[in-house]
Amino acid sequence: MNTLEKIATYCSGGAVLCAGLDTVLEKIPNHLPKEVSSILKFNLDIIEATKSIVSSYKINFAFYEVFGSEGFDVLKKTFEAIPDDKFKIADAKRGDIGNTSTAYAKSVFEYFKADAITVSPYMGRDSVSPFLDFKDKVVFILARTSNIGAGDFQMLETGGEKLYRKVVETSLSWGEPEHIGFVAGATSAGDIKEIRDLAPKSPLLIPGIGAQGGSLADTLEANGTAPAFINVSRDLIYASSGLNFAEKAAEKAKEYTLAMNKK
Amino acid sequence: MNTLEKIATYCSGGAVLCAGLDTVLEKIPNHLPKEVSSILKFNLDIIEATKSIVSSYKINFAFYEVFGSEGFDVLKKTFEAIPDDKFKIADAKRGDIGNTSTAYAKSVFEYFKADAITVSPYMGRDSVSPFLDFKDKVVFILARTSNIGAGDFQMLETGGEKLYRKVVETSLSWGEPEHIGFVAGATSAGDIKEIRDLAPKSPLLIPGIGAQGGSLADTLEANGTAPAFINVSRDLIYASSGLNFAEKAAEKAKEYTLAMNKK
Repeated sequence: MNTLEKIATYCSGGAVLCAGLDTVLEKIPNHLPKEVSSILKFNLDIIEATKSIVSSYKINFAFYEVFGSEGFDVLKKTFEAIPDDKFKIADAKRGDIGNTSTAYAKSVFEYFKADAITVSPYMGRDSVSPFLDFKDKVVFILARTSNIGAGDFQMLETGGEKLYRKVVETSLSWGEPEHIGFVAGATSAGDIKEIRDLAPKSPLLIPGIGAQGGSLADTLEANGTAPAFINVSRDLIYASSGLNFAEKAAEKAKEYTLAMNKK
Repeated sequence: MNTLEKIATYCSGGAVLCAGLDTVLEKIPNHLPKEVSSILKFNLDIIEATKSIVSSYKINFAFYEVFGSEGFDVLKKTFEAIPDDKFKIADAKRGDIGNTSTAYAKSVFEYFKADAITVSPYMGRDSVSPFLDFKDKVVFILARTSNIGAGDFQMLETGGEKLYRKVVETSLSWGEPEHIGFVAGATSAGDIKEIRDLAPKSPLLIPGIGAQGGSLADTLEANGTAPAFINVSRDLIYASSGLNFAEKAAEKAKEYTLAMNKK
């Protein structure tokens, strides 16, 4: 399955669960030694236990880059461990001009073989287009994020509307809506609804559920039946700090999936 | 010397040259084999030839990440090859929330031992603060970039002024001005002047000279005598495609340095 076929298959009923592999040494179970190889061991066990339940994984590059080239190696092996038919999101929040963005895109889409990447819109069209040139991939542009600082610039009024709305409207002119996704935080369901209305066909990546306090029901309601990936990281992967951590993560994934299907 | 001492020393007269190591296989001299180890060989030769002339180096992460963990290893070895008393800029354009930005900051400041990083402001204060928590480092926030797409969002009017001005004003309240730098493209000297007026003490990182067409004289005039790093990448490191490429890069660096001192 290519990227768009995965979305068509998994998101036929709307939003699906995405497991966020925000793996850090401070939070993995105590029986695992505090060394970088444990990050990989942890990820492999989580993936093995959840892959029959979860259709999408999001991997946050920061937690691997902190270990340098060794961390980048764990990142690669984590991507490889996720079955090819899963929707793999590189949460890297990249963005630079022309040939630099092309290099980032090649890293994420060709080396790591991700289906999608998160990018910042601040530098405008020619910083995002090189990612969109990979026609069979999805680019999630930061629109309305789930953090407090989202208020600093994203919510500023410009030309009678908020900047994040302007980002959505403007960037939709850069390519096909199926390829242009947006990051919309679950901490503000009203803004998810606004983004969904502006971009009815675009896949959304929705963080902020679980540890960050966003409401699952409100999020599902705001998204409607269009494609979306609702990311849960800490609440899922750290469901238990015991030897049974992977099993408990799978149970938590099942809980979320059931709650999402109930809608 | 720590980071601020480097700035005080090198930028006592205003702007200085920064050599941008945007090394790509397509552009290195033909006598070097087209393999990732040649990137390192090229960088080591350029650094060796220019280190008596140049006080600052900027390394663009994209061109290393494209080679995965092997590229990250070349990146690390490149940082290590630059003498400790040089001002080392990690051009990584990172930015995420809280603990994620902390991980990116640790990667850049502790693993790679950079003096400074470039970050995107779009996610607001809590995406930038974790970098500023490293009190002895400099964070260059994207303000007015040198690309065409800068016009898409950075130049939007909000509350009676352009967004990039709002970014500068707002982010200056997040910490000490000596630590909060800004990226201001040389392709628009008028906007450099505006940023300099808003942030008289902040170090500026100024790309866009050389291949991108910005004027060195106008840039120096706009910056005045405050600290700034004027980055030249392609025009310097690819000064020659012959066996003498490093020597020619050093000559080019001398030319720029002379031109900058003439002001």
